[in-house]
Amino acid sequence: MPPIIETLTFNADGLIPAIAQQHDTGDVLMMAWMNAEAVAETLATGQVCYYSRSRQKLWRKGETSGQVQKLVELRIDCDADTLLLLVDQTGAACHTGRRNCFYTAVRGGELTEIATPLISPETLYGHKHG
Amino acid sequence: MPPIIETLTFNADGLIPAIAQQHDTGDVLMMAWMNAEAVAETLATGQVCYYSRSRQKLWRKGETSGQVQKLVELRIDCDADTLLLLVDQTGAACHTGRRNCFYTAVRGGELTEIATPLISPETLYGHKHG
Repeated sequence: MPPIIETLTFNADGLIPAIAQQHDTGDVLMMAWMNAEAVAETLATGQVCYYSRSRQKLWRKGETSGQVQKLVELRIDCDADTLLLLVDQTGAACHTGRRNCFYTAVRGGELTEIATPLISPETLYGHKHG
Repeated sequence: MPPIIETLTFNADGLIPAIAQQHDTGDVLMMAWMNAEAVAETLATGQVCYYSRSRQKLWRKGETSGQVQKLVELRIDCDADTLLLLVDQTGAACHTGRRNCFYTAVRGGELTEIATPLISPETLYGHKHG
C-alpha cells in the first residue's frame, strides 16, 4: 500500500466516499465508495476503481460498460475522510446512460428530470444481460 | 416533511451524504451528512443545514463562523442515496479557513497542499473559543 493510504480515515466498513468530478468542466459525475485496495489500484493504474457495496468486490469503473474514468488527480479533504477524484470520463458516468447521476433536481417543490441519457442502458449493458 | 424526503434512501444511521458545489464556478466545496430534518430545513429556509455526526445535532452551516451556504438547487442521484447541493458559499467552506476542504492533492506520489486559507480559523472561531 502507498503510505498515502495510511493517512486516510476509512469508516467502520473500511470504506471512504469518493466524489468523481470531470476535471475540465467541473461537472460532478457521481459519488461511490472505495476501500484501501481500490484507492491503491486507482493510484497505481490511473483508472478509477471503486468498491461495490452491493457486489462486495472491487468495481473497475467501466469494465462492463466501457464508460471508464481516467484519473487526473486525487484530492483528500481536511478530515481525510472524503476523496475528490478529478477524472476524465468516457461517455456516461451513470448506469442510466446519463452523463452524471445527479439528473433529478427539486424545482418548484417537485422532482424534475433535468438530463436525458446519452446512450441507452441496453446499449451499455445489453450484451451482459441479453 | 416534504414528500420529496420520502423518496430518499438514508443509511442505517438515518443519514445521507451531501456534496456542496459552488453553483457558478463548479468548485466542490465539501461533503457532509444530512438527516431527514436537515434536508427539510434546508429546503424550507434556503440555508444549508447538515447533521453533525460528532455533535449529534443539526449543524446550521455558518452559524458560528458566518460562512453560510445559500441553497441554489438540490439534486438527487440515480439511487436517491446521495445529494448534490448547488450553493452560494459565503467566504470559506472549510473550518481551516480555506475556500474548500479538498486542498490536499496527491502529486508525484506525495501529499501536496494546493490552497491557502482565505481567513484564519482564529478569526472564524476565535470569539467562540477565546
